[in-house]
Amino acid sequence: MISIQTKRYSFNLKKNFPFEFKTLTQQFFRVKLYSSMATFNRTTLEEVLKKRFFYTPSFQIYGAVAGFYDYGPPGCALQANIIDLWRRHFILEEDMLEMDGSIMTPAEVLKTSGHVDKFTDWMVKDSLKTSDIYRADHLIKQELETRLEGDKQARAKLDGNVQSEKSKKKNDKSQMVKLEDSVKAEYEDIITRISNYNGVEIGEVIRKYNIKSPETGNDLTEPEEFNLMFESSIGPTGHQKGYLRPETAQGQFLNFKRFLEFNNDKMPFASASIGRSFRNEISPRSGLIRVREFTMAEIEHYVDPNNKTHSRFNEVKDIKLRLVPRSVQSEGKMDPIEMAIGEAVEKKIVDNETLGYFLARTYLFLTKLGIKPDRLRFRQHMPNEMAHYACDCWDADIHNSYGWIECVGCADRSAYDLTVHSNRTKEKLVVRENLAEPMIYDKTVLEINKKVFGPKLRQNSKTVEDYLTSLNEEQLEALKKALEDGNGTTKVPGTDGNQYEITSEYLTIKRQTFTEHVREYTPNVIEPSFGIGRILYSLIEHVYWTRKDDEQRSVLSFPPRVAPFKCLLVPLSNNPAFTDLVDELAKRIRKLSIAIKVDDSSNSIGRRYARNDELGTPFAITIDFQSVNDRTITLRERDSTKQIRENVQYILF
Amino acid sequence: MISIQTKRYSFNLKKNFPFEFKTLTQQFFRVKLYSSMATFNRTTLEEVLKKRFFYTPSFQIYGAVAGFYDYGPPGCALQANIIDLWRRHFILEEDMLEMDGSIMTPAEVLKTSGHVDKFTDWMVKDSLKTSDIYRADHLIKQELETRLEGDKQARAKLDGNVQSEKSKKKNDKSQMVKLEDSVKAEYEDIITRISNYNGVEIGEVIRKYNIKSPETGNDLTEPEEFNLMFESSIGPTGHQKGYLRPETAQGQFLNFKRFLEFNNDKMPFASASIGRSFRNEISPRSGLIRVREFTMAEIEHYVDPNNKTHSRFNEVKDIKLRLVPRSVQSEGKMDPIEMAIGEAVEKKIVDNETLGYFLARTYLFLTKLGIKPDRLRFRQHMPNEMAHYACDCWDADIHNSYGWIECVGCADRSAYDLTVHSNRTKEKLVVRENLAEPMIYDKTVLEINKKVFGPKLRQNSKTVEDYLTSLNEEQLEALKKALEDGNGTTKVPGTDGNQYEITSEYLTIKRQTFTEHVREYTPNVIEPSFGIGRILYSLIEHVYWTRKDDEQRSVLSFPPRVAPFKCLLVPLSNNPAFTDLVDELAKRIRKLSIAIKVDDSSNSIGRRYARNDELGTPFAITIDFQSVNDRTITLRERDSTKQIRENVQYILF
Repeated sequence: MISIQTKRYSFNLKKNFPFEFKTLTQQFFRVKLYSSMATFNRTTLEEVLKKRFFYTPSFQIYGAVAGFYDYGPPGCALQANIIDLWRRHFILEEDMLEMDGSIMTPAEVLKTSGHVDKFTDWMVKDSLKTSDIYRADHLIKQELETRLEGDKQARAKLDGNVQSEKSKKKNDKSQMVKLEDSVKAEYEDIITRISNYNGVEIGEVIRKYNIKSPETGNDLTEPEEFNLMFESSIGPTGHQKGYLRPETAQGQFLNFKRFLEFNNDKMPFASASIGRSFRNEISPRSGLIRVREFTMAEIEHYVDPNNKTHSRFNEVKDIKLRLVPRSVQSEGKMDPIEMAIGEAVEKKIVDNETLGYFLARTYLFLTKLGIKPDRLRFRQHMPNEMAHYACDCWDADIHNSYGWIECVGCADRSAYDLTVHSNRTKEKLVVRENLAEPMIYDKTVLEINKKVFGPKLRQNSKTVEDYLTSLNEEQLEALKKALEDGNGTTKVPGTDGNQYEITSEYLTIKRQTFTEHVREYTPNVIEPSFGIGRILYSLIEHVYWTRKDDEQRSVLSFPPRVAPFKCLLVPLSNNPAFTDLVDELAKRIRKLSIAIKVDDSSNSIGRRYARNDELGTPFAITIDFQSVNDRTITLRERDSTKQIRENVQYILF
Repeated sequence: MISIQTKRYSFNLKKNFPFEFKTLTQQFFRVKLYSSMATFNRTTLEEVLKKRFFYTPSFQIYGAVAGFYDYGPPGCALQANIIDLWRRHFILEEDMLEMDGSIMTPAEVLKTSGHVDKFTDWMVKDSLKTSDIYRADHLIKQELETRLEGDKQARAKLDGNVQSEKSKKKNDKSQMVKLEDSVKAEYEDIITRISNYNGVEIGEVIRKYNIKSPETGNDLTEPEEFNLMFESSIGPTGHQKGYLRPETAQGQFLNFKRFLEFNNDKMPFASASIGRSFRNEISPRSGLIRVREFTMAEIEHYVDPNNKTHSRFNEVKDIKLRLVPRSVQSEGKMDPIEMAIGEAVEKKIVDNETLGYFLARTYLFLTKLGIKPDRLRFRQHMPNEMAHYACDCWDADIHNSYGWIECVGCADRSAYDLTVHSNRTKEKLVVRENLAEPMIYDKTVLEINKKVFGPKLRQNSKTVEDYLTSLNEEQLEALKKALEDGNGTTKVPGTDGNQYEITSEYLTIKRQTFTEHVREYTPNVIEPSFGIGRILYSLIEHVYWTRKDDEQRSVLSFPPRVAPFKCLLVPLSNNPAFTDLVDELAKRIRKLSIAIKVDDSSNSIGRRYARNDELGTPFAITIDFQSVNDRTITLRERDSTKQIRENVQYILF
């Protein structure tokens, strides 16, 4: 599984850690790893992760609660390193404006953003045992997939490929039943589209295909909408409702005006935020993939709707991405097309340069972390998947043993969020741009003749005026025509719904020429949103392998820059002769802010190396009796297990 | 306010950033700053912080909600730098086991820890306008302090020191009324002790001293207990209650067993966690000092209760701290004693070495950040302030314009938390230590004679057995005596409360010799807990000053390592001739992961420097026409405003 060409090394821990350390492993030991999908076993990996305390279900001694996880020391360090790289790659390098906002959010904010009404999933309950609650779309998908698996087996049997019961996977509940071709096609179609079904459609599917409660076989209740936000109450009155934010985005939008000011009113620019968000999932499973509390990193890039070019697009235009555009999916396929992002934007497959730029930057970030490019694809949302206001959206899907998992969403949210918050609060969330040349244009305008209007309409003047001032140019022209047609009289509704008679004396409607020196617009927002936990878990799967000579020996080949610990320090044994040198080196390395782990336990040296392979520690320094005498140490590389011996001064400082 | 001695500099941005950069300012320009308490004006500072977007009330365009703040780019970077330093200083250097746990916590966990019952404050309402709710202890303290201020003015007037109305502070609501000496003493006593009063005592104070609702003058209601945890519900059933964690500590305790295992069963060791916690304060004021959502960094150091020495105590023992021990406070004073921590532990002023070690390490951390040593003190809790299980507790108080504010708490929590969680879950949270020599001891034990016990007591045997097995040695000896005194017969209660007759045939009570090779104990926990927001705000006040020549020119003299931005890059004007060089330098500096800010706005260079003084950016690089020709740049130092000119190659790369 490993091929190695050793070459004369040039290695200095201080110089190489922790920054420019991309591919030290490759440079140093010329290691080439082939991750092996075929032999992957999730159960074995999960045991390693549990044993090494990468993460664990939260509150486990209390029986745990689904969807909550604690990261132990290696998981926590891995997460911190991923976030650190994200911050350097995006915020620092691109000069984004980072903020750290509140998690608890007043209900009104999330009512405006649409989350109170629309951030829901459909749930169904067991009709008799109502404590069994399921997320409807997941339940249907699972059941139909099981039936399709049974169909597949039945067809194979008919073809003479009899599958022994033994080779069946442990959790395979499928029954060998052949389906009609038309039913099979229907199932496949439903599976693709189920996540966009509404409650009525879901109810129909359940009845039509006789889907039952999986544990009991009972009927299921009609689908109910369940809001995914955790609700709470702020302050002692009990009257101020709050929710835990489901995304960091809204907090950024509310501060748009301050960001713009901080940026000296220059456009375009981006704000960014890294933090915890919450989704009260109906029945979370799938480990770190679907959780109720998670760390996300979100960018909101504000751009002129008339100009979505990006000044650095040129730097990324030749990067090739594996794209799955709508055109491919609408043929029922998911095969990626490899294409340079420049070409994709040019051909309008990706809507604009800024969106394209972020797809390429996302690719660079993920592969820098250690995500394998051949297990990464960019999938475009189908029109019916997107919010009505979005104009394009691409997911970065990473492949792992749960399938292709959406780890990054990259959406053009248009001006939606800034507009709704601005309308609700009457706070202008706009950009004012001085025009090089003034803009001159004609416009149909309404002028109310106050002297007549008020006295004639009296107590009704407000409702009529409110209606009239809400009219757009086209409606004003229509009104003008109605007045002309009615010989200067017509009826209009007030905002109260009643009809009122008005005459041409009340108002004037006319074309007027305007000159503007400032253009005012609401920026569009392009939002790359990263689920850190999903990326972290996928990365672990991508760098995980077992040694060919011993399947019990697991290795996590993290790139050094994201590895939880950079170096292991091991004395040959717990002989007190080694203590001083171990302490000295540990102290000196830690002073360099390099995360090391000292393992002076009584286990054999091989066992201690194996433990650190499981932690993904790229290097190990061994202190033996010779070290104490001549200050040479042994440096072991994780992937190749090759060792070199050198003076400590040369290697470390 | 500044005295400067310039000397030949030796400055290399790459070499000095971002690590070993402690006192570059001092080394480089020999700047000595005197922070000026006398001229401090919080309103001016707050305007600067708002203008530069250090932080802002959250949801401000929706009218804001008290106790929630968003950090803008400089505040967010400052916070990240403080956390980064904390992580290096504690976790990395001391090899602590970091974890990142869930915020949402099931009610049962916090019921066990005592938070559901005891994490409360007392509130009082206006009896007529019940939407006015106050935290009782704060309200009383504020009212009595106002009366004392009035008394002070009245006494000054009697002494002939008439204070003009003009010189009165704007918010001073005090009325000039002289108090009886005895009343004055009572007020002072209540102010010191009010935070430990219970509801009955608070009610008495309110009635006795006629304290009214501050806005309306109405009567106040009786004090009610208000739990400070935000409550929510987990999952779709609505039956699983959860709270947002009020501290990160409990999540760490629940994982104790895994930490110990990860640490190869070695003691002592520490776990640590940095994250968001929540307290639903009754009526938060005081800016960042009292908030409902905050970032904290907590260490739980697990130690053998019989041996609280610390292996690195020697390294810190000579560090002098300003201590305010109990003995000083019990005399009604708060004057700190300056004493080496070694001496304080030796004299038992500080309970043990480990606690002392963390006080000293806390001092080093805070002063490294830029906290002024003369505005930092360590105050010991009085016995009635501490939880009943704590054996010693010290706060690091930092002085700012709100007074002496508790920013770090350093408590010895004994074995309390691990014990209660262990009792509740039946999960052993203990250390097992192999003994070098076996421990041999005698113990009184109970042996039940099953053959007689069950058949005689029949359905009552369980309740009696449960009672008997719960007895300790002393109680067993007493029972033995009772049986002897009763000629082999006596009565004992069952756990059901009924009395049952037993005879000496039922059981044997005897001394037995035990030999143990393993010692099992519940570790004690020493917990240094840091409020990051309070430290951040205090730091801002400590480094804030205004230029002598111009009070409008504010400067924040952050040490470079915590400064939000390290360097400002300014072209002399927005002449396009500068663009290429600015872009080149910006890109190269960002590649070094140094946070810079480019300001190519059209403001005058002086205005741009002033803006960056307010952001606390320690250095500025100016590009002018000469730069474009000969690649020399001007480097300006923030505090001294001194400038040097050198080749870009020499200064930067």
